[in-house]
Amino acid sequence: MKRIEQTLRAILPVDQSWIRKASERQRELTKPPGSLGRLEDVANRCAAIRGTLMLTANRPRIVLFAADHGVCKERVSMYPQEVTTQMVLNFLRGGAAINCFARTMAIELKIVDVGVANAPSASGDLISRRVRAGTRNFCLQPAMTEDEMKSAIETGINLANDASAAGCDLVGFGEMGIGNTTSASAIAIALTGEPMDAMVGSGAGADADCMARKRSAIQRGLALHAASLGDPLGILRCLGGFEIAAICGFCLGAAARRLPILMDGYIATAGAALAVRLCPALVDYLFAAHCSAEPGHAPLLNMMGQEPLLDLGMRLGEGTGAALAIKLIQASVAAFTSMATFSGAGVSNR
Amino acid sequence: MKRIEQTLRAILPVDQSWIRKASERQRELTKPPGSLGRLEDVANRCAAIRGTLMLTANRPRIVLFAADHGVCKERVSMYPQEVTTQMVLNFLRGGAAINCFARTMAIELKIVDVGVANAPSASGDLISRRVRAGTRNFCLQPAMTEDEMKSAIETGINLANDASAAGCDLVGFGEMGIGNTTSASAIAIALTGEPMDAMVGSGAGADADCMARKRSAIQRGLALHAASLGDPLGILRCLGGFEIAAICGFCLGAAARRLPILMDGYIATAGAALAVRLCPALVDYLFAAHCSAEPGHAPLLNMMGQEPLLDLGMRLGEGTGAALAIKLIQASVAAFTSMATFSGAGVSNR
Repeated sequence: MKRIEQTLRAILPVDQSWIRKASERQRELTKPPGSLGRLEDVANRCAAIRGTLMLTANRPRIVLFAADHGVCKERVSMYPQEVTTQMVLNFLRGGAAINCFARTMAIELKIVDVGVANAPSASGDLISRRVRAGTRNFCLQPAMTEDEMKSAIETGINLANDASAAGCDLVGFGEMGIGNTTSASAIAIALTGEPMDAMVGSGAGADADCMARKRSAIQRGLALHAASLGDPLGILRCLGGFEIAAICGFCLGAAARRLPILMDGYIATAGAALAVRLCPALVDYLFAAHCSAEPGHAPLLNMMGQEPLLDLGMRLGEGTGAALAIKLIQASVAAFTSMATFSGAGVSNR
Repeated sequence: MKRIEQTLRAILPVDQSWIRKASERQRELTKPPGSLGRLEDVANRCAAIRGTLMLTANRPRIVLFAADHGVCKERVSMYPQEVTTQMVLNFLRGGAAINCFARTMAIELKIVDVGVANAPSASGDLISRRVRAGTRNFCLQPAMTEDEMKSAIETGINLANDASAAGCDLVGFGEMGIGNTTSASAIAIALTGEPMDAMVGSGAGADADCMARKRSAIQRGLALHAASLGDPLGILRCLGGFEIAAICGFCLGAAARRLPILMDGYIATAGAALAVRLCPALVDYLFAAHCSAEPGHAPLLNMMGQEPLLDLGMRLGEGTGAALAIKLIQASVAAFTSMATFSGAGVSNR
């Protein structure tokens, strides 16, 4: 755990004095004070994260982590597990929703196999960091071992470091893994203490029977591992997925590199919420891209004190919400850095 | 009014059968059905507007209409009227928020002077369509004559035709005019019948005294012109602004050319609401970009059956909300036209 502990220690609380300096600049720009609403807060917080008023947001990257889930044996999804691998291939060919959004928004997209069941055939564009061919069924045993969890978290940290080294100034993340709303729901219940009904939705479209199996699997998992759910790493090891562990690590790594981080939907947020539990200072580095239609997402964001930027009834994952919100961050930064001032433009102030 | 009547007759209700055809295609794309939420509805409606599944949204244009308001004599704004002209010059130099957003989103921006009080010095980039050096004070007389109103509406129609002729496949609009939340509030009250308190906000930041003057001016305007407020053109002529009339015309012209139209904030929506009252079929061509922090915006959108795409507490105008939402429309169209199908990508469906 040395690498993880080093990363945790490298995450500094954002310096609130930059918020004040940024707010002062906002008042000089040619617009009524506060008239850009939440976009002003976004830019001000980016200034605090980056520790500068000379903000950029020209090099966004989204990292999409894919893995499979042993709990699929409980038939918690309407889709067969093979769809995870098929969708990874679809990402690599550019045919999924996230590819279309990334092209529209000029976002660099990286696909990481953290442990899908059937390894996709080699491709130059796939980042292969396979921990194992999917997690174990958490209804019967912990989803992963301590070493497997550590490996997946470190993969996330490494991917964040890669983004920083490549000059990225804004990162987002997404996930793919058939069955992973079941894992995310179990994690969210363990983290928030909210009741099952508030936190379990239909995921990719479960029918009533499938929902019943999903609730049962979560209930059994929570009961079996009750003794291990007092700390975030216990929750992650027993109930998580490799993509969720990697996302947890990615958040830690990106915050350690002082990057603004866009969370995607429910599953992605579950990974980020574990990271926040490990390191509360992380919360100031995170932006909630959107609120998913999955019912547990809003309470999870609420627990983290995060207000989503978008609310479009989406529930796809893949980083699609993060991709849409990246333009909002970029717009907030563009206004902050490129607008004229009242005095500079000869515009009369009040 | 011949030109306006011709335009009204050219607006056809959208063909709902395209919604059905588009929905069928949505179900073939590699995502759980409905998982892109409102973005699926957006693309489906674009298909109905354009009358094709071969959608594009590569050539967006925002037209920003600026004009001054005689009601400023009632001291309804904290900013002096000269700010309208100063901001037009700021737009032309690229220093305003809308310029930053348009650059970030690769949106073509056109600035139109429909009647600011002090004509900006000539510039190749300014489209000068001055009706008059600002409207009259609607507390004392109608804001504009019938001919002036017609001229401003036709300017909007012409700008929409220009966008269509230039190959634009998506248009938005914004406005600038010191005092124009007063005009928009008066129009919105006349259209909705909502009480003053629900429809009048602080605009660019009015203090309590300024708010009292604003409410008083609106009250006097509504009383003086009560006999003329039964039809939308009476409302526009008595209480409107040249930029609001131009926006009304722009909506009509764009719908006649079957373009998807993004509304901006409160004032822009007041212009669009007048157009919808003139031509109810127009409503299917409109997308509400965002919900402004100005309190009257939500009831006005509600009256039009419009659900905003964004809600970020913004209240700037200029087309800034429309600019942010254009990427959402483009993303919805990109997913619709460029995603792989389940069969094409070899992805197992449920």
